[in-house]
Amino acid sequence: MRSALTLLCASILVLPSFAHGQDAQSGIAEVNGKWMASFNSGDGAGIAMLYTADAVLLPPGSEPVKGSEAIGAFWQGSFTESGASIELKQVELETNQNSAIEVGSYVITGADGGHADHGKYIVWWKKVDGSWKLYRDIWNSSMTP
Amino acid sequence: MRSALTLLCASILVLPSFAHGQDAQSGIAEVNGKWMASFNSGDGAGIAMLYTADAVLLPPGSEPVKGSEAIGAFWQGSFTESGASIELKQVELETNQNSAIEVGSYVITGADGGHADHGKYIVWWKKVDGSWKLYRDIWNSSMTP
Repeated sequence: MRSALTLLCASILVLPSFAHGQDAQSGIAEVNGKWMASFNSGDGAGIAMLYTADAVLLPPGSEPVKGSEAIGAFWQGSFTESGASIELKQVELETNQNSAIEVGSYVITGADGGHADHGKYIVWWKKVDGSWKLYRDIWNSSMTP
Repeated sequence: MRSALTLLCASILVLPSFAHGQDAQSGIAEVNGKWMASFNSGDGAGIAMLYTADAVLLPPGSEPVKGSEAIGAFWQGSFTESGASIELKQVELETNQNSAIEVGSYVITGADGGHADHGKYIVWWKKVDGSWKLYRDIWNSSMTP
């Protein structure tokens, strides 16, 4: 009886969950696109909006930065080299109901077109009021200091 | 009809899932205990066993290190200061069926008892053949270089 019900549950739940996975993939890709555009135009306030209100940024060489407002200020303060641009590339994504984990890599190109930095990141995403937002964000450079 | 079935599914599924969360919490705490013990005794092979065979380590200042064997060698090579000890502290844990995400902090104490380093990490865990193992592992120092 219990296993028959479990099978029934599976048939009811698997299809929406598959659709949800696709929705998460495209929703997160869209936010990553906005994140890159905000970074590349030096728009700290634009980046801040992509994080949950209670997000925590975990940057190298800094204590954790708590809350989307402080996170926006952090990024604004990092735009020291005008004209630098970042490219994020997703390597893996696992999605659950209102949560996702992403592993990716980044490359930063300097204003002169030269290679400035590259490294990797993990972002823990949360779906808040129907929108995917960065909840925890950690990265480090792969280059030797 | 569908919502009645969903309620029924919930009552069947919630209890095991809650129990699973507790199991994950204690299982991961146990592995973190072994990880610290291996680190503190300079046992790279012991650390390697705690990662999935296809794990990827994402260390600062290094390209990703792929596979538990290479990860063991990485840690073995990092035990340059004999007598240093690490303490991991879990800050957050979200568990799903065979996957979990953990945010934490670390403190490294030097052989002389002084503060050597502190920072934060995110680990993506996977449950493989009933055992929780580190699947993706990234961290960075909070200290200014």
